[in-house]
Amino acid sequence: MSGASDRLCVVLVDARNPLNIGAAARAMSNFGFLRLRVVNPYDVAFREAKSAVGAASVLADAEEFKNVADAVADCTLVVGTTAVRHRELQHPLRRLEYGARLIRRELATGRVALVFGPEKTGLSNDDLSYCHWLLNIPTREQHISMNLGQAVAVCLYELVRDAKKATPAKKLAKEKVTKRATAGEVERISDGLLEALHRSGYVKPIAVTSTEERVRRMVRRMNLSSKDAELWLGMFRQILWKIKAGADGKE
Amino acid sequence: MSGASDRLCVVLVDARNPLNIGAAARAMSNFGFLRLRVVNPYDVAFREAKSAVGAASVLADAEEFKNVADAVADCTLVVGTTAVRHRELQHPLRRLEYGARLIRRELATGRVALVFGPEKTGLSNDDLSYCHWLLNIPTREQHISMNLGQAVAVCLYELVRDAKKATPAKKLAKEKVTKRATAGEVERISDGLLEALHRSGYVKPIAVTSTEERVRRMVRRMNLSSKDAELWLGMFRQILWKIKAGADGKE
Repeated sequence: MSGASDRLCVVLVDARNPLNIGAAARAMSNFGFLRLRVVNPYDVAFREAKSAVGAASVLADAEEFKNVADAVADCTLVVGTTAVRHRELQHPLRRLEYGARLIRRELATGRVALVFGPEKTGLSNDDLSYCHWLLNIPTREQHISMNLGQAVAVCLYELVRDAKKATPAKKLAKEKVTKRATAGEVERISDGLLEALHRSGYVKPIAVTSTEERVRRMVRRMNLSSKDAELWLGMFRQILWKIKAGADGKE
Repeated sequence: MSGASDRLCVVLVDARNPLNIGAAARAMSNFGFLRLRVVNPYDVAFREAKSAVGAASVLADAEEFKNVADAVADCTLVVGTTAVRHRELQHPLRRLEYGARLIRRELATGRVALVFGPEKTGLSNDDLSYCHWLLNIPTREQHISMNLGQAVAVCLYELVRDAKKATPAKKLAKEKVTKRATAGEVERISDGLLEALHRSGYVKPIAVTSTEERVRRMVRRMNLSSKDAELWLGMFRQILWKIKAGADGKE
């Protein structure tokens, strides 16, 4: 979503801790959203935020505004974030999973502002009045309020999150395919292991067949790749050699 | 997922900045995962991490460990996190969207460790050798490395995200649930196999570490059930006994 991600603006309102601005910038850089807008930051030197590893360019390009109205003026959709759930909100409240879908849809053609309030108080009623609706991260009731930098990271992650990648079938197709061991390779491993077990006295004469079957099934459950099969074969070869050498020494 | 979320352990390895431990704890508290394990933290006073608004109880209950092996010993699935994509990884690498599904499935019955490495370097090869597979957050190529606290937040968010839809209840009910081997059991199998390999001369002195890591990874790829783990342990015990007996006979 290169063009689309360029149309998302992360707006931080009255952020009090420059470290949080830095952290937000870093998450933006991680997920490919590079437009940061800062409203009335507590520290005018926020661009030097130290924790912003790799986010220097996001901070350098950040735009400053005096108020929320100006910061979101060119956006077609303005979404506020809030931890609040039970307070009487005048806005539709959408869970992140669903809200992100709506944002992605809008980003196809329009510019979207994602607005985060100050650390302690969140967005004021005045700030909220510029928002079309509110986004809510599904935290637990006992501890709903997230750290600012982490909240930004989670929201942006949801925006880049790929629903298709959550399903194993597609994933497997794209995944580097591991070559499975052939039945013959697997059988040779069973043989090697069984010989070691016979020679070690693990296999009791009375239960030879059932033990052999059990071992063979067990080796199949390993579901080996071709590479691992080779490794195991080499190991059993060496172990067997040692057992035989020991036995010869004794005889 | 109350019972299930209690079975997830967030493991922070060699975290250097107590603020990051605090941030991780806060995200854990936000998303309802309360079990924090800390391996060898840089600052022993990490429990006082200041940024951990509302996460005091997670920090107070955090368990400390000397090494990764101990921290994950009671877990049936150990998942590492990494920003790396192109380096030659020896582990299956899964995108967060899909990996989280696998973790949720395992959490239905087993204990899962989600392991995060130190801020600058990430997990070492030795740390990785305790992992079954690796999780990758879909950050952009130009800036893949996330802040530790934000990475924890994003991973845990994906775990609570729309959990009902992601894990179809029907499927879980129909699937015969196999109890997975714990990391401790798997480690004992690695140990048994490695001792046999050492005594057989398979492990060359010049490559001890790499061979040991390779074997450890290979054993984890077996993806053992608890029952099979028991079988393997018994077999290696017997094979080892034989090798030792042979060696004694010779001396």
